[in-house]
Amino acid sequence: MANEAEIQAMRQAIRLAARGLATTLPNPVVGCVLLDPDGTVVAEGWHEQAGGPHAEVMALRAAGSRARGTTAVVTLEPCNHTGRTGPCSEALLAAGVQKVVVAVPDPTDAASGGAARLRAAGLEVETGVLAEEAERGLEPGEGNEVWLTAVRKQRPFVTWKFAATLDGRVAAQDGTSQWITSVEARSDVHRLRAQVDTMLVGVGTVLADDPLLTVRDADGNPLARQPLRVVADTHNRTPANARIRGNDAPTWIATGAEVGTIESRLRTVAAPNAAGSPQGSGGQELGTSGAPYAGGTPYGGGRRELDLHALMRQLYARECRHVLLEGGPRMAGAMVEAGLVDRVIAYLAPSLLGAGPNALMDAGITTIADVWRLDLVDVRQVGGDVRVLARPRAR
Amino acid sequence: MANEAEIQAMRQAIRLAARGLATTLPNPVVGCVLLDPDGTVVAEGWHEQAGGPHAEVMALRAAGSRARGTTAVVTLEPCNHTGRTGPCSEALLAAGVQKVVVAVPDPTDAASGGAARLRAAGLEVETGVLAEEAERGLEPGEGNEVWLTAVRKQRPFVTWKFAATLDGRVAAQDGTSQWITSVEARSDVHRLRAQVDTMLVGVGTVLADDPLLTVRDADGNPLARQPLRVVADTHNRTPANARIRGNDAPTWIATGAEVGTIESRLRTVAAPNAAGSPQGSGGQELGTSGAPYAGGTPYGGGRRELDLHALMRQLYARECRHVLLEGGPRMAGAMVEAGLVDRVIAYLAPSLLGAGPNALMDAGITTIADVWRLDLVDVRQVGGDVRVLARPRAR
Ligand SMILES: NC(=O)c1ccc[n+]([C@@H]2O[C@H](COP(=O)([O-])OP(=O)(O)OC[C@H]3O[C@@H](n4cnc5c(N)ncnc54)[C@H](OP(=O)(O)O)[C@@H]3O)[C@@H](O)[C@H]2O)c1
Ligand SMILES: NC(=O)c1ccc[n+]([C@@H]2O[C@H](COP(=O)([O-])OP(=O)(O)OC[C@H]3O[C@@H](n4cnc5c(N)ncnc54)[C@H](OP(=O)(O)O)[C@@H]3O)[C@@H](O)[C@H]2O)c1
Repeated sequence: MANEAEIQAMRQAIRLAARGLATTLPNPVVGCVLLDPDGTVVAEGWHEQAGGPHAEVMALRAAGSRARGTTAVVTLEPCNHTGRTGPCSEALLAAGVQKVVVAVPDPTDAASGGAARLRAAGLEVETGVLAEEAERGLEPGEGNEVWLTAVRKQRPFVTWKFAATLDGRVAAQDGTSQWITSVEARSDVHRLRAQVDTMLVGVGTVLADDPLLTVRDADGNPLARQPLRVVADTHNRTPANARIRGNDAPTWIATGAEVGTIESRLRTVAAPNAAGSPQGSGGQELGTSGAPYAGGTPYGGGRRELDLHALMRQLYARECRHVLLEGGPRMAGAMVEAGLVDRVIAYLAPSLLGAGPNALMDAGITTIADVWRLDLVDVRQVGGDVRVLARPRAR
Repeated sequence: MANEAEIQAMRQAIRLAARGLATTLPNPVVGCVLLDPDGTVVAEGWHEQAGGPHAEVMALRAAGSRARGTTAVVTLEPCNHTGRTGPCSEALLAAGVQKVVVAVPDPTDAASGGAARLRAAGLEVETGVLAEEAERGLEPGEGNEVWLTAVRKQRPFVTWKFAATLDGRVAAQDGTSQWITSVEARSDVHRLRAQVDTMLVGVGTVLADDPLLTVRDADGNPLARQPLRVVADTHNRTPANARIRGNDAPTWIATGAEVGTIESRLRTVAAPNAAGSPQGSGGQELGTSGAPYAGGTPYGGGRRELDLHALMRQLYARECRHVLLEGGPRMAGAMVEAGLVDRVIAYLAPSLLGAGPNALMDAGITTIADVWRLDLVDVRQVGGDVRVLARPRAR
């Protein structure tokens, strides 16, 4: 059983880990606290950025010779492999650490074995201490959940973010949508983007809004590190002059030829109109969907669309660990239906439209018994808007 | 300037007033505190129910002879007319009250003049003390706003309540909607219903859901006092065996013949299917609306619908002061467009549907510049759901 000092130290280690949220991908966030036998904090460390030293090494460096005889409290099982840095298990042994307290075991084949190695060397090792808190975060969304989920599922963690009115519209009837939410909510989105390594949109959003999809700081200046921008674009419809193709950030136009396709479920698809022009009216319904969409164009049968599971596998292979799905409604519907959404962040403006595209379309749900339930994780006011953070339940 | 004791007393008077929220309509909620010259509370009173004694009279009764020389702190200007009870101004004078501190002046012609009468009799009268708090409530929605708005606008105050998924759906594609929100949210709705004197739905909701629309207590038993149930039903389509026609509560089927009509704006209307049966698919669009509705049936030109302003006038004449608009989306759209919504209460479940009718349809808004903005008044978790309380801005 971990003692009170170790539990306090683990809480601190979880907080330290969170400092790396915007900089460690494709690595986990990890925090480490070294404790004297009497429970005094000797040193702290956290994994600051991918390629940099691990949390344990940072703490050991800060402690120097005072590391001897301490207990290392660490949010993730110390690694046992030589990657860009040496194995942390060996570093802890070399420094003379006596005991190791771990929150979450390492799920990767390559890195795991750290606990076993330390035990074999005669150290006391305790795991599972505040494991839930380390995974989920002390503040909602600030744990190691993203990396752990990605590694376990061998695909990126997906956060679906949308901004809508209180009646669930993401744009007006004529396609205009700037701005639904407040300045504060939009800054919050930039903080969110700074924490991911990938942003995903459907080609419909590119055609409708011609978004730049870069991350800017509070002054509106682009950050040095920009996430990969991905467009799900089966038939290569992204215009040659689309802003997303610019040099501001890396871009991948993921086409059917490259990713692979599956047969499309019945649904309308966005009209292939010019970038930036508003969606016109005249939408028609394809099949039996109850919620046709303004501006949609029906396609005949046999149409194909990206295989989203294949897309996720390819993104994982490219070291993408956290995808921010920014829409639109149809991509979101397809991702939800495919079971590929791990977190939902809704920014709801206290406003009403009464017409226009919905936040979510064509998710394959036709009756209330099949409603996709989530658990509310956090609700707060951001500027004049409401931010809802929710986690899907297992279906 | 009111002193600190008077301001404290006014806060208490506002809290006392709120105790009458479910019982005083068509009267205002009023609270009264009597203070000694040294600021000690001598007695309290509030208007408990329509037809019963006013707040001032309750406080004077509780004080007895100790009322002499006190300051009366009261949330609404004392009345000066003989209604079901005598004028409060005379009662205060007769009891020997020395000073009167008022939050909000009485906007009614019949009752006002109380302050003038008291001043003429030589009393010091101060008005406007915590007027905003008295009108809006110390807790959101718990002030005298409903009655004040109704009297000023000469129509009932309208609270529009809806329950939707995070993507804004009030039912699934097949029309099923039980239950979108949690038990706790549904109890909250019953508490809300207990505070109104009128509930309004469109005939579309009656045809789709056959609701009973009564108020039940925590055990599910109907309350003694039931609000008037009103169906906006231009063409008398409410089925003879609709549950809303039962004896559980008073009902008014408001038809075009009785209320008056105006020419309908272009929109789809609910299919006249049997009560309780789900809305089928096959909706078609009428005109240029961007959000056609599953299960709607297009009507030809020249169709008429209830004149909602006339409906509100008639409800006011029937002493209705607080209408709870319970839907559906088209009635809500028409009420919003007519500028007849004073408060919005949204219960949002953390769930997703991706298809089905929206909370709001056809509110006459086509572009984002015309979005109907509200101010967020309160956001909280109710059970597993989010409750958002918002107040429309002047357009
Ligand atoms: N407020 C917000 O948060 C927000 C965010 C984004 C967008 N929006 C709004 O959403 C609207 C655009 O929405 P949209 O639904 O037309 O566009 P979308 O969801 O961005 O893109 C849909 C398109 O993605 C492509 N796609 C490729 N693989 C797919 C798959 N497996 N499943 C589904 N789609 C796949 C399809 O085109 P191909 O078959 O050609 O590949 C499809 O038509 C605009 O009005 C925009 O303003 C709002
Ligand atoms: N989750 C919730 O909070 C909630 C609440 C209520 C309903 N719902 C759902 O909403 C759906 C029904 O919605 P709905 O839109 O069909 O029904 P609705 O809004 O209740 O009723 C619309 C009908 O009201 C009549 N009406 C009379 N005067 C009107 C006026 N001035 N403007 C507009 N309408 C007027 C019209 O029929 P006439 O022309 O024949 O008079 C119109 O078709 C159902 O699926 C139900 O489950 C959900």
